[in-house]
Amino acid sequence: MKAPAPLEALTEALRRLPGVGARSAQRFAYHLLQHDREGAALLARALSEAVTRIRHCSRCNTFTELEVCETCSSPRRDPSQLCVVETPADQLMVEQTMAYNGLYFVLMGRLSPLDGIGPKQIGLARLLERAADPALREVILATNFTQEGEATAHYIGELLRARGLKVSRLARGVPVGSELEYVDPSTIAQAMRDRRSV
Amino acid sequence: MKAPAPLEALTEALRRLPGVGARSAQRFAYHLLQHDREGAALLARALSEAVTRIRHCSRCNTFTELEVCETCSSPRRDPSQLCVVETPADQLMVEQTMAYNGLYFVLMGRLSPLDGIGPKQIGLARLLERAADPALREVILATNFTQEGEATAHYIGELLRARGLKVSRLARGVPVGSELEYVDPSTIAQAMRDRRSV
Repeated sequence: MKAPAPLEALTEALRRLPGVGARSAQRFAYHLLQHDREGAALLARALSEAVTRIRHCSRCNTFTELEVCETCSSPRRDPSQLCVVETPADQLMVEQTMAYNGLYFVLMGRLSPLDGIGPKQIGLARLLERAADPALREVILATNFTQEGEATAHYIGELLRARGLKVSRLARGVPVGSELEYVDPSTIAQAMRDRRSV
Repeated sequence: MKAPAPLEALTEALRRLPGVGARSAQRFAYHLLQHDREGAALLARALSEAVTRIRHCSRCNTFTELEVCETCSSPRRDPSQLCVVETPADQLMVEQTMAYNGLYFVLMGRLSPLDGIGPKQIGLARLLERAADPALREVILATNFTQEGEATAHYIGELLRARGLKVSRLARGVPVGSELEYVDPSTIAQAMRDRRSV
């Protein structure tokens, strides 16, 4: 006896979620079919919608439904500052501090040579192109304060300084070893104010 | 600044998975959109398929694509025995033992008055109907050995015995391969009471 094929397929598909193993996937599948078929249908639609409608902003690379995201096209943002973050989640976190009014570039990753993630994989060419904007005065590196984030910041810093840009890094008010997404906004605000040239 | 609507909707929908909070849901959504859009599309299809095609067997209530599941319609199963389990996962587990060749009834839950789950919610009326089958000689209660599972077994046992059926319960005792030193005292006490001649 085996579980019916569509149930097996659903369990298998749920394992694509990060950190979800065979047991959890089965628990998710059974829960949805037993107790929340409406939720399952809703999730199916949300996934299709997101995959179809979410793309990357052509300027800053963040998730958006538009060709150019709302932040990049806002006249209220200061075009002389560019904050480089690893993920859209990090960008949201910086926004929540209300301590920054410039623009962003989202790497969608970090340098990680051991995992085969080099400058090409995180699209550094696009960042350099973006950084050629004559309105730009300063690039603020807000990658995570992990080893990989620091290495990424260092690498990007070298490249941008060589192009004559002022480059700064969030101050080490942020606890070393932690990820932006999990730090409280006031700590990030402090680090934004104390950013230093590198 | 907010995340784009389809991304918010996806995060919200992922929270319908049991035990998944806001943080995990966001992590799942970002992972799928950044690193595994194919997986997201696959999961969307698997969910729709499962919701459309999976229903409950009209005899045993388990998940199936058929009106009557393969186990219930198999001529090789012994129709004089009926094993009552809480979930299809439990049913698969009993099947894997190769120690049982009768039929099943899947409650799709357990009695849990505090959560508002009474006899109606777990469809006991359908079990009683099923148990009216004249071919049936014995009902084996294989609900979990938790407080709720035990209460469910007790309740069902009373009902079925009142209808003149032989009712049994899986034996309680020391798990195979375990060392007494590491088994909890109540299990050993139970095994002592239920000891059998050898």
